[in-house]
Parts: sequence; C-alpha cells; structure tokens
Amino acid sequence: MYNSKMHELGSKRSVIRELFEFGKKRAAEVGADKVYDFSLGNPNVPAPECVREAIAELNAMKDTTLLHGYTSAQGDAGVRKDVAEYINERFGTALTADSIYMTVGAAAALTICLNALTVEGDEFVTVAPYFPEYKVFTEAAGAKFKVAPMRREDFSVDAGALSALINEHTKGIILNSPNNPSGVVYSEACIKEVCAILESKSKEYGHPIYLISDEPYRELVYGGVEVKYLMNYYANTLVCYSYSKSLSLPGERIGYIAVSNRAEDERGIYAAICGAGRALGYVCAPSMMQYVVRKCLRAKPDIEAYRANRDLVYNALTEFGYECVRPDGAFYLFVRAPGGDSDEFCERAKKYGLLIVPGGDFGAPEYARIAYCVSHDMIERSLPAFRELMAEYAERLQG
Amino acid sequence: MYNSKMHELGSKRSVIRELFEFGKKRAAEVGADKVYDFSLGNPNVPAPECVREAIAELNAMKDTTLLHGYTSAQGDAGVRKDVAEYINERFGTALTADSIYMTVGAAAALTICLNALTVEGDEFVTVAPYFPEYKVFTEAAGAKFKVAPMRREDFSVDAGALSALINEHTKGIILNSPNNPSGVVYSEACIKEVCAILESKSKEYGHPIYLISDEPYRELVYGGVEVKYLMNYYANTLVCYSYSKSLSLPGERIGYIAVSNRAEDERGIYAAICGAGRALGYVCAPSMMQYVVRKCLRAKPDIEAYRANRDLVYNALTEFGYECVRPDGAFYLFVRAPGGDSDEFCERAKKYGLLIVPGGDFGAPEYARIAYCVSHDMIERSLPAFRELMAEYAERLQG
Repeated sequence: MYNSKMHELGSKRSVIRELFEFGKKRAAEVGADKVYDFSLGNPNVPAPECVREAIAELNAMKDTTLLHGYTSAQGDAGVRKDVAEYINERFGTALTADSIYMTVGAAAALTICLNALTVEGDEFVTVAPYFPEYKVFTEAAGAKFKVAPMRREDFSVDAGALSALINEHTKGIILNSPNNPSGVVYSEACIKEVCAILESKSKEYGHPIYLISDEPYRELVYGGVEVKYLMNYYANTLVCYSYSKSLSLPGERIGYIAVSNRAEDERGIYAAICGAGRALGYVCAPSMMQYVVRKCLRAKPDIEAYRANRDLVYNALTEFGYECVRPDGAFYLFVRAPGGDSDEFCERAKKYGLLIVPGGDFGAPEYARIAYCVSHDMIERSLPAFRELMAEYAERLQG
Repeated sequence: MYNSKMHELGSKRSVIRELFEFGKKRAAEVGADKVYDFSLGNPNVPAPECVREAIAELNAMKDTTLLHGYTSAQGDAGVRKDVAEYINERFGTALTADSIYMTVGAAAALTICLNALTVEGDEFVTVAPYFPEYKVFTEAAGAKFKVAPMRREDFSVDAGALSALINEHTKGIILNSPNNPSGVVYSEACIKEVCAILESKSKEYGHPIYLISDEPYRELVYGGVEVKYLMNYYANTLVCYSYSKSLSLPGERIGYIAVSNRAEDERGIYAAICGAGRALGYVCAPSMMQYVVRKCLRAKPDIEAYRANRDLVYNALTEFGYECVRPDGAFYLFVRAPGGDSDEFCERAKKYGLLIVPGGDFGAPEYARIAYCVSHDMIERSLPAFRELMAEYAERLQG
C-alpha cells in the first residue's frame, strides 16, 4: 500500500528516542535531578542576541510582503551575495552570489547535493565514525553507501582504507569536520592526504570525484584550532553549511550549499542542485531566516560554555580511567566502552541515570557518544555516576 | 558528471522567469507603470497582523532555546494537537495530533506523500488544468504521471475521462480545489462523483487508491462558496495544506499533511510519511513558524481585496469579449486565448505590457493564467491594454 522502505525509516524507533522515553520514566521514579541526558545534539546555548534583534527589526517593517514572500528558489540574491563575500573574506575564495544555494538546513543541503549528483550505479564513501543519516540520504538518492574504517588512535581518516573503497563508481566522498560523533577536527595533513587521493582517483577513473564537506560544526572549535576550508585544497568541493549550531537555530532549518567556483562545470553542478531542490519539494529556504542570518553573519555562539563543558567532562572521564580522544570541536565526546561493547555499556549506564548513545549507528560499535551541549551543572552532578559506572566495570573486569 | 534530469529541471528557464526578465527590460524602456505583471502567484496582501504579533511575542521570550530548537520530526506535539482540533471543529472530523505531520509548505507535503506511497510501477492521476510541479514531484518520487482532460464548460472534473485513466497501477489521484490555475472550486456533486469512482476502482483492483487533496487556496473563496472537506467523503484521503496563501507566508514554508483517521492502516501511512520526510532531508518544519501558525489558526487573509480584484478583472474581460469561467476561489483567472493558441496570445499580450502565463504547462494550451494577486490599481490601469489586445484579435479574426 505504501513504500515499505519509507515505512521502515519512519517506524523504527531510534536509540535516542528510546533513551528519551527511558529518561522521562526514570525522572518520574527517582527525580529529574538524577537523570543525566547526554543523548541529544540540540544546542543548549541560546541564539546570540543578534538573532533576536534581527527578528525584531525585520518584524517591525511596515510592509512584510517581501519579508514573508517567496525568494528565488536558490535564495534571495542579496543574501547570497553577502554570504559569498563573507566566505571570501574568511577563506580567500572567489565565490559569487551564484555559488551559493540557500537551503532548509544542512540535511536539505546534503540530500540536494546527493540527488543532484547521483546517476544509477553511483557510490558515495564516508569515513567512520559518521552521522547515521548519511546512509539514509545517500540510499534515498539512489546511490550505494560505503564506510571506510577510521584511524583508531585519533579518529582521523585512514587514508589507505579510504582509498581502497574508491572505484570507478565512486561519485563522491562525504567528510564531516568537526566531526559528529567524535568532535575531532581533521588536520591539514589529513586533508591534503585525502585530497591527493581524490585527485589521483579522479584522474585514474576519468571523472571528478566530488568532495562533499558537511560543516554544521565549523564555528564550534576550542583553543584556537583551525578548521581548514576544503575548497582551497580541492576544486571539486561542495560545502554544506548550516546555522543550526553556529547561531543555535536548529529548528529554523537554515543553511546553504557553496559550490566551488573552481569545480569542473560548476554552472552545470549548480543547475543540477537547483533541479534537485525543485524535485525534492524545496521551494525556497525560509525567507525571514534568510534575512536573519544575513544580519548575523559575523555572530558567534557562546563557545566558552561549550569549551568549559568539554574540559569538565573530558578531564573527569580520563581521570576515572575512560579512554577517549580529546575533542577539538563540536559538542561531542566519543568514549570507548570499557568492555568494548557500547550497547552493553550504554545499557549499564542507564542504571546510573546516564543517557549516552551507543556507537553502532555511527559505524564504531566499541564507542559511545556523549553530547555535552547541556548545562555545566548537570555535567558536574553526573560525574559521580560516571565514576561509579567505571568502578563497576573495573570490579567486573578484575573478577 | 551530475544527474541530467536534475540538471534539466534546474536549468530550463521557466516561462514565468522569462516573463519576469521581459517585464524588467520593458519597464526600463517604457516605465514601470506601463508593465502589468499578472504572472506570479505571490500574495500581494500582507500577512494578517496576528502574524506580526505572534512573532513579536515569541521573539520576546526570555529563553529562546526551545523556540529555535528542533521540534520532533512530525512537528511540535502541542502545535499538532491544536491544528487537529481546529480541523475537527471546522469540518467535524476526528483527527488527533498524530494525524498531523507539519511540513515545510505544501510542496514538501506533496513530495513527502508521493514518496511515502510510491512503489515501483505506480501511477498518479490528476485533472487538467493542474499545477505543473505535480509532474515534477510525481516523477521524482518514481511514479508515472497522468492527466485527465478537464470538463471544458466549467473546468470541473470529467468523471469519465478520469475513470478511464485509472488502472491496477494507480496509487492515487491529486485534486486541487480551489484550483490553480482556474480558480474553480469543485462542487459537492463533482466530489461525490470522483469519490464514487475511487471507491469502485479501489474495490475492483483490490487496493486503496489514495486521494491527495492539495489545498493551499482553501481559505481564498468568495461570495460564501464552500470548499468541502474531502476526508468527509472518502476515507483514504491525505490533505496537503499550506499557510502560504491563508496567512500570506509563502516564503516561510509552513504547512501540514493531515492523514484521515479513517484511512486503511492509517498508522502505517503516517509512519511512511515520517520515513519519507526523513529520507528527503526534512528534519522538521521551521520551528518558530510552527508556533506562529498555532497562534494564528483562526486568522484570515484580506479576502475582500482579492474578491474586489476578481470582480474587476472578470467583469472587464468578459465585457471586452474574453471567454472565461468566473473563479470562485484562489487568485487566478483562466482565460481562453481568442485565437485558441495561448502561446501566441501571451506573446502578443507582451506588446501591450501584459504579462500572463500560457496554459500549456497547466495542461490547457488554449488558455492563459492571469494571477490577480496584484494591486487593484494596476488592474485598473491594465484594462485598456486588455481591450486593445482583444480589438487586435477581433480585427485579425475578421480580416
């Protein structure tokens, strides 16, 4: 009667949803102050004041017909021009308004890119650990999805493993740095290595292999770490950006695709992006939010709050004996399950009121994701629980 | 390199876009006051004051984390509950929050429904004249698109023609009333006839044939005409609604799908809708706009302005000798090209500064669409041009 694949995608309860339900139940039993929910990647830092001011200013316009009216499908021309100029200013690129396609968030940016590029038989490759929706979006676009195992010591790209998965059917790779779920920022050396592989494989197979850079966490980095701009390293790059985290607007669904002006047939790619946006039902990105982000291009979220959380949770957990790579960005910590089985680890954690997400869906079943976009106070209160959980493991592993 | 179908969808300049460019050029030559642009379905009536008040109130919240945060994928539970109750109150249905799936406008509602339902080999049927994107959305979902010719005397459904196109592969039909481009509202008799066909064909082929009711113009009707609620006539109905026209918010992309609680396996359909929304990259409908429409459920656009426009343009054109069916709703008038060739008619109209859209893409090449969601003043100023255009035809047809 309906499409069974869509039914499966819509009816399978997600692990995070299950944790949420468990949390509600447990809060009713033992009190909300004894439930420590680290499961959601929903920014707890409010939008910068600039957003409130921009909304108030726009909303005060005498005639709101333009404010709430259709923009062109690729986004308001003035907004796109300002976005392009801001990128050029920061990264030394040479983009124009026509390099930018405003989207209904990063998920829309990704699905539009994937649908614009995919022809029958195509494959996309990503690197573990990865955001699970990549698989959903890639397969829905009609392409095959492949995952290269990570470099275990630092959650970086294992260049050999990546290279081995690229063949004549590879249309592109998806990179995500700062990374969800690991918080790792890929180094310049790593980027250069990946781009060299893409150059050589593109030449070998006689067609461009696109680099899709999914960058919702670009602005969330700590201690002066730099997130390199990938189109400066590789011509055939499409950047998928979102203001969800940089302006704490995840519900508003506003982002963009930037097509490198050095990409082969970039006008053709841009047109295919416009066509895919149209075919998927994206008429235009929400109009008022287009004008809001234009007014807030230089605004930053309260990074300091996230950094303090990162330090607190990372330092405490390593002190308790947990193994994890120190994240330089995003608001996630990827911790190794003491016994190596993250499903068991996360189940056991629930007994202590700790809600964390097992890494299987991220392509790393030995690890679990801790989202620290929560109150500093909750992290402080949760630490004894993490300590006791580790003590239970220590006893068990000894005994 | 990219998907050629998407490239074609994105690069083919639309007739409306061409008209827009022509209008800009002509305005520079003869003055903007001598260009009469009737090509765009973009509401010229501003959003009701309620929208401005709702935005101001929400934007003044001390903590905006929830306001701009993710809602659940199907929409905020409170918003969905209020939408369902409002529909029940108006139409006597028995919907619940879980009958409603909030969408990024009606286009997203349609693409999500089509992707949720379609399996290989499926077909969807609509009735001419029809909104051209139906073809794009249906084919992108992987189904075949068929168009039943209209009943020429009143642009209503030709039941025999519709019935003849339904076969064992038909997954559903798409109806649009008030209609874009004709402005016609289907009568209760017409609806009953269509539903009887769907009942009988569903029985004949042993599976439900869904009725997708695309209703962005529901609130735009004049002179007390009633737009019947289709799920009261047919169980397997999915309503695609948008606030684009009812609240003059087309750029904000906010609407919903309502799944009839009487539909066969309605929980399964709803789950498939959730899955399709996910696969297409729709994470949630824009959060603040969900809360805005909740506060404005009972608000109405300034119908009176549209009605006055309808009367002015319809009365004048029929007086000049144009043939058209008097529209009861939406903001379109579908006029017969005097010579029967709307491409030629619209080209000839441009000489008089009149920008109107030929009907070929709407499945009715003898007709042209006049969008009267423009200023009353512009309509008044345009009337001599319409008169001269008709005079030219009269002379030519005589000569």
